[in-house]
Amino acid sequence: MFLIFRTDQTWPDSPEELSVDLDPGEIAHARARRLKDNAIVHVGDGRGRRWAGSLSWNEKKSARVQLSGMCEHAANGFPIFSLLSAVPKSSRKDWLIEKSTELGLRHFIPAEFHRSVRERISPDRFQRLSREAAAQSESWFLPTLESALSATEIQSFLQQKLEDGAEVHILDLPDDSDRRSQDLFAESSKVSKNESSGASRVGLAEVVIVVGPEGGFSDEDRKLWKSLEQNYRNCKSIQLGHWVLRVETAAISYLSYLSISSVLN
Amino acid sequence: MFLIFRTDQTWPDSPEELSVDLDPGEIAHARARRLKDNAIVHVGDGRGRRWAGSLSWNEKKSARVQLSGMCEHAANGFPIFSLLSAVPKSSRKDWLIEKSTELGLRHFIPAEFHRSVRERISPDRFQRLSREAAAQSESWFLPTLESALSATEIQSFLQQKLEDGAEVHILDLPDDSDRRSQDLFAESSKVSKNESSGASRVGLAEVVIVVGPEGGFSDEDRKLWKSLEQNYRNCKSIQLGHWVLRVETAAISYLSYLSISSVLN
Repeated sequence: MFLIFRTDQTWPDSPEELSVDLDPGEIAHARARRLKDNAIVHVGDGRGRRWAGSLSWNEKKSARVQLSGMCEHAANGFPIFSLLSAVPKSSRKDWLIEKSTELGLRHFIPAEFHRSVRERISPDRFQRLSREAAAQSESWFLPTLESALSATEIQSFLQQKLEDGAEVHILDLPDDSDRRSQDLFAESSKVSKNESSGASRVGLAEVVIVVGPEGGFSDEDRKLWKSLEQNYRNCKSIQLGHWVLRVETAAISYLSYLSISSVLN
Repeated sequence: MFLIFRTDQTWPDSPEELSVDLDPGEIAHARARRLKDNAIVHVGDGRGRRWAGSLSWNEKKSARVQLSGMCEHAANGFPIFSLLSAVPKSSRKDWLIEKSTELGLRHFIPAEFHRSVRERISPDRFQRLSREAAAQSESWFLPTLESALSATEIQSFLQQKLEDGAEVHILDLPDDSDRRSQDLFAESSKVSKNESSGASRVGLAEVVIVVGPEGGFSDEDRKLWKSLEQNYRNCKSIQLGHWVLRVETAAISYLSYLSISSVLN
């Protein structure tokens, strides 16, 4: 499937009269794939719909897709996963964007916790990497890159989400530097078994996965999680006791866990 | 924690009299971390045990760890996960090794399916990447790289595992190239709901996760899976219907799912 995305406009359900011009990157890609006139190209809106169309070249310099097919909708049953996460560096950041897109992430919210190293995500790079991954995995969804949150903005953001009925799952990564060997030993058998552990019973509401920095949450962060957990039944903190995971591994692992649970259970 | 591994010898539970010499890579790392005389270094056997010891430098050229601490054992409750997988290329291969180590993988079995592109794993590179990842994540386990299996060897390998009581979970990646758009649409709502879907009830036995090539399984592969499923209750095939996943993403996602399920459920 040759899939491109157009997210910047609102599509009607039946856009038979519409056409889409390929951009330079897409033209290069279509050439590499040796697409000929009349090849079928799919155009997705990145929000769960797509249409098939027919390609026509203008002397290999430009190319246009005339939409003809019916609108396809993603099947129901996709929970909305959002990731509010500390931002890892360099290739680990790229990998997080790519893999979370493959797994159908909807919203990426970069966050700066009290102990985070400040690291930015370039919107251009985010868009390029996520479009490539979404095309490759034939995804129905493109994740949106939301405004970065400072440590003091996280609270009101999460409160609003909780008020709106979203679930908030806070991943508590063990703090490497503070721990002694004996603590680690104890940690490795400590498992979150509270009643809220039914994370597999994910409905269709939004789930916001919160992943802290590798240095661990600060005392202020922890105070906030505690008060949120006390005030909202839809907020819980998750301890993945077995491992010391990097930010991007924790995020992808837990996203995988929720996604696969929602399919298999 | 400064953690090194020694897997090439059998350690007694109380090796107080023993010492370990750091190799050149470990020396460079210890220098970068500015470890001084008497710094605590942990030595793991990569199979669930480790000891603490005390570092002594010999003029910064060589360094020795005198073991002194008690033996620590990984807490019980780690299922044994093995991955029998097609091998992706270049950075995706490295990433698969790194992340599966972080998630506690025990055995990696490279496999060549009928439609696989032949791709090798260098034992040296595997060892380097997995040791770095295991040290970083303070893992109790180092994955072993098993002999690669040809397409014709896979059957007897899996039969032996099934006879020995292991669970075998076969991930059926959708075949991109053969599918039409309409099939994909149907596929995206097709979900494995058979009774064997209780993958979350993983015991402590070995689970062998089988991940096929991105081109999809061949008819011969499929015949084999069918006969295994008919003959062994502990063999099942899993359809992750929502996504077209790359080999390494499928492997890591499902490993995450099983690992986290074993902790949370």
